[in-house]
This record gives sequence, C-alpha cells and structure tokens, in this order.
Amino acid sequence: MFSERRERLRERCSGAGVDAALVSAPANVRWLTGVPGAEALLLERDRALIAVAHPARDRDEAIEELVVPPGQDPAVAVATAAHAELLGVEEHDLTVARHRAVTDAAHCRLRDLHHAVEQLRVVKDDQELACLRIAAEIADQALGELLESILVGRSERHLAMELERRMVDHGADGPAFPVRVGAGDHSGRARHLPGDRRVEEGDFLTVSLGACYRGYRSSATRTFVVGLAPQDWQVELHGIVFAAQRAARETLAVGTSLDDCARAAGRVLEARGYPPELDEGVGHGVGLDVEEEPRPGALEPWPGEFGKLENRVPVTVGLGVALPGRGGVRIEDTLVVRPSEDGGPELLTITTKELLAL
Amino acid sequence: MFSERRERLRERCSGAGVDAALVSAPANVRWLTGVPGAEALLLERDRALIAVAHPARDRDEAIEELVVPPGQDPAVAVATAAHAELLGVEEHDLTVARHRAVTDAAHCRLRDLHHAVEQLRVVKDDQELACLRIAAEIADQALGELLESILVGRSERHLAMELERRMVDHGADGPAFPVRVGAGDHSGRARHLPGDRRVEEGDFLTVSLGACYRGYRSSATRTFVVGLAPQDWQVELHGIVFAAQRAARETLAVGTSLDDCARAAGRVLEARGYPPELDEGVGHGVGLDVEEEPRPGALEPWPGEFGKLENRVPVTVGLGVALPGRGGVRIEDTLVVRPSEDGGPELLTITTKELLAL
Repeated sequence: MFSERRERLRERCSGAGVDAALVSAPANVRWLTGVPGAEALLLERDRALIAVAHPARDRDEAIEELVVPPGQDPAVAVATAAHAELLGVEEHDLTVARHRAVTDAAHCRLRDLHHAVEQLRVVKDDQELACLRIAAEIADQALGELLESILVGRSERHLAMELERRMVDHGADGPAFPVRVGAGDHSGRARHLPGDRRVEEGDFLTVSLGACYRGYRSSATRTFVVGLAPQDWQVELHGIVFAAQRAARETLAVGTSLDDCARAAGRVLEARGYPPELDEGVGHGVGLDVEEEPRPGALEPWPGEFGKLENRVPVTVGLGVALPGRGGVRIEDTLVVRPSEDGGPELLTITTKELLAL
Repeated sequence: MFSERRERLRERCSGAGVDAALVSAPANVRWLTGVPGAEALLLERDRALIAVAHPARDRDEAIEELVVPPGQDPAVAVATAAHAELLGVEEHDLTVARHRAVTDAAHCRLRDLHHAVEQLRVVKDDQELACLRIAAEIADQALGELLESILVGRSERHLAMELERRMVDHGADGPAFPVRVGAGDHSGRARHLPGDRRVEEGDFLTVSLGACYRGYRSSATRTFVVGLAPQDWQVELHGIVFAAQRAARETLAVGTSLDDCARAAGRVLEARGYPPELDEGVGHGVGLDVEEEPRPGALEPWPGEFGKLENRVPVTVGLGVALPGRGGVRIEDTLVVRPSEDGGPELLTITTKELLAL
C-alpha cells in the first residue's frame, strides 16, 4: 500500500521533470511510509530513505533508514544522500532557513512540489476511512461520558483535559487537536482557547473535540445548555445554527464544492436574519491532518483544480453564531462524501446535535 | 516592560539597517507584546501592529490590532500594512511559501532578522523567572501526586495524560510539551513517545514533564523503579547517570558554556566505562519555548556569540543512558544560572533525584 503510494508520487514527479522528492511535511511522510516516527523522506527512482530518531522495530524492507542525531535537521540529513539534478521539496513546509540548508546539502537545484502529496491524499482508501470512523467513535464515547457527569463549577480547561484523557483511555493516540471548550460568553466561537471560566447554570457550553487514531483525526463540535431548561433565545439560536449546518451537510455530494455548502448555510442564516459571516468557510478536508485538502475556494493552494468534491473524501462541516457578550452555538461534523446512489454523505460523528439541557 | 522590549528590538534593527521588523515566531511575538493570542507583529519606528483572531479584552493602548479572518496568513496581513524599505523577517520561522507571500504583500525588500529576538530573550527578568519557578513547582506537584498512586498495570500513555491533567488542575496553562513516559525497555530515552506498554513490577520508569505557566515552560525528567527493591544493575546505572548529571550541573556558572557541562558529564560516564554518547548535548535554554537559546555549540545559530552562560539564564541539564532491550535512566533539571557569590545555580525542579522504588 505504502509502496504503491510512493509509486504514484514518483509518477507525478517524473511528469513534472523532477527526479527525486524530499518530503518533509509530517503527515505526508507518514502517508508515504507508514512509519509514525519518520521525520523526512527522500524518494528517488529506485529507493526510499527516511530519517528517524531511533531505529524502527518492525522495519519495512522497502525503506532504508538513516538514524539522525538530535539537533540535526532530518530533511538536511536525507538531502545529503540525494542523487538528483532537480529535487522536489515542500516549500509550504520548509522554512527559508531550512530550505537554504537543504540547498547546500543537496548540491542540486530545488523545485517546489506544489502540494503534490496533499493532492494524492485527498481521496481515502478503505483502511484510512476505517481509522477515521474509529477516531470519530472514540470522540463520541468521550463526549458521551462527560455529558453524564456534573459540569457546573468546572473550568473550561479542566473539561478539555478530561476529554483528552478519556479519548486516550478509549484507545486514541491522543487528541486530534487541543480540545476546545467555551462556556457562557465564550460559547459558539470556533477558535476559543479553554481558560479558567467555570461552567454556570444557564450557560451555553460549546465543545470541539476529535480523536487521533493511527494518525487519522476526526473533528466534531456540539453546543449544550447547562441547567434545567434552555431560554427562548438559546432555543432559537440553536435552531438557526442547526438548520444552517444541516443545509450545508445536505449539499455535500460528488461534484459539489465546500463553497456550495457555505452558500447553502449562508442562505439559511440570512433568511433567519443573521448576517452570514462565514469567513471560517464551513469546512475542509480531514485525515492525517485535522485540516487538509480540499479547502474552500479562497484557500485553494493550487490553480487548475476546482475544489469539486469526490467520492471517499472526508470533510468537516461546521459553523456557528456567537452573540457578543452572550455566547452562541457552534455545530460541526465529520462526514465522508459518497455518491447519492450509495446513500449520500456518511456521518462519522454521531453524537446528537439536539439542544440537550445538562 | 513590553514596550521596553520592543524598543530594544528597534535598536537592534536600526543598527542592522532594517527599518521595520515582522516577527512571526509565536514565542517572540508573545515576548514583545504580552498578548497570548497575537499571531504576528509588525514593529515600525513609531508603531506596533499585531494580528489577532479576536479583538482582545484588555487592550494595550500602545499596540494596534488587526483582526485577521481565519484562513488568512497573519504575517501577510500585517506585512500589507508595512511602510518600510527594508523589512526584517524571521527566516527560521517563515516557510518558503509564506516568505514569498510576505514579499508580495510588503512591496519592499526583506532581510533575515538572524534570531535577534531570541538573543534578546536569553537573559530573563524577575517576572519571567517567577513564572518559570511556578511552572517547575506545578510539575513537581503533579509528579509527586502520581508517585503516590498505583502504577503497575497502567499504560505509558495513560500516565502521561494523567500528569498533563494534574498540571492543569494545579494552575498550568497546559503541559510545556507532551509528557513522555517510558517503562521497561523504553526507559532512559530522551525522545520516547508514550505508547500502550503497561508498567510492570521491576521496570525502570522514566517520566519527562514540564508545566507551562503564563507561557513559560519548565522541563524535568526523573527515573524510578517500580516494585519493592531495585536490582543491582539498576542501582549501578542510576548512580552513574546521577553522578554525570550532577557533574554537569556543578559546571553551570557565569562564563562557562553548555558544552563545558556536556564535557564534565562525559568525563564521569567515561570513567565509569560508559561511552559518552551525549549527542543530545546535556541542555539548552528554556523560557517561552521549551527549547531555546542558548544551545550547545554545534547548534549555535549565529556566529560571533560564544555560547557563554550569563546570570539569569535558565537552562535544562539532563542526560541518560539506555541499554538496548533493558532500558535505562534519564535525569534532567531546569536551573537558572547565577554567579557563585549568589550561591551558584538555582534549581527549579526540586523533586528528588534519588532512585525511589514505587
């Protein structure tokens, strides 16, 4: 499987006139080698060389290993071993300083790989989808357990840490990203970092979490109300966000784009009197990176691809509305794009999106 | 305090003929602004402009804010606002692709800042040292609590997560780095990632942890024996590593270097018949980054500075010996360099380094 992936990259490279590739983005190295600790990959026509900190236990015979001492740049180390005239590198990953060091080490010209590996990674195989399903399931379990416990009086930070620990207890490698918890006026935001704010009766509580399983990452966001019964404005706001997120989800199909999903959500928000400030977009690809290709149009890193969704592409679909000083609602799912004859998008994050009062 | 720091950077810049600086390395931005969420800083002669995701609550009147929507590069956003002919940038932080985007946005020439901010950050002020002391104390508390609990049967990963949660409970922003736990044949290694290995009777158990407090990070490593009494080889190995690490610590002084510390440790190891493979060095600076300047000689990023330690420089001093298939011992402390008339190095990580049997 991994050697077949490397073969596809070799084809891309020779199509672009590049005779070797130096892959440094961690998720790309992992996707091409299957070695969790590999820190850089030199892919030439007849060999694959990885930089590792420690010799692997179960070595893949098709991959040579270079043990790199700490303090030495793994990309530079494998570049030194290159036999190439034109070496493809990942300019979106290498810093200017590292790129310079690689140039000095490789003794050849460098050319940008233009996200070649990220493009190959967009459509997932069965094994990748299985890992994503398990990642989503782990996060659902952890969230479910938390919801059965007492929340009032606990800090955002404490709840976030507990969710991370529970995901590990259920078999995750770790959290897919630092868990985000926002209570009260922090709720509904996409990028709130959990702090010392304690959960109070009547609060909206927004939780964003995902598990990492064998490198694959899920992402889900839910918003709850703490206390006996939600207030009218909470019910209304939740209903609006839920409807907009559902419209976005229902737009997901082979041949549509994430921009189409954002527009569908925007129409719902606008019709209910909320300005569609969806500058987050509504989603992006997800896999070995928690945010990867495809991305909404404005972020498309390469021209000539139109961001159309394909079968077997996992994406997040999420959006929120936060009212200044009061907080709000954010809802996000991870789904896999499937053709309508197969029943349409497959929902991986199955925790209920209803407005639970906890 | 922050404006005084910015003034020192302005002086460095004008000395180098650079009329504005674009700071993108997260710790550098934080050190210069005090704003935890600031994502990039444009420092010109008469203004400081930061990129933020959300408007700050308690704004520093001396700093202008630019709210940058998600998906947009904060460094590019502030570069667009630059009025400079020669803009200093951090080539060790910006990727090649981001550097190109900054060049397009700034409409001026760029020049490397050559770790200018990192150099200014080496010697800490009282407030910084106070944060580091608290960070070290939090990690000591968390570790102390863990040692009182039952360890046999728990996985490395589970112990690591528990330590992270306990540090947050004691007031940390979060862990300074992902906690590392190695049991049995994983013990003694510097870079072991915690896995599913469960702790067994008779194991060496190596724990590396640090807390992050107000952005400042401590680092400590201890090795214990699980069970009633350590075996002879364990006692011997522990004694050797302890003696070598003590020799390195005792070498820490104003005017010496981390290379001197590594040599002192190496002599002890060699005298006891262990090859001094100290390719980790024995330490590095610590502060807003868990690994920062000063670094041992081979890694010195700028010429002309000789890596001599100064008063008020916090560093880590740690080393280990791991026997293949059996594991080993690693011991590390965070200390602050002080002149001998003030009593010499100040030890921040005070958990005992004796070989406890747990």
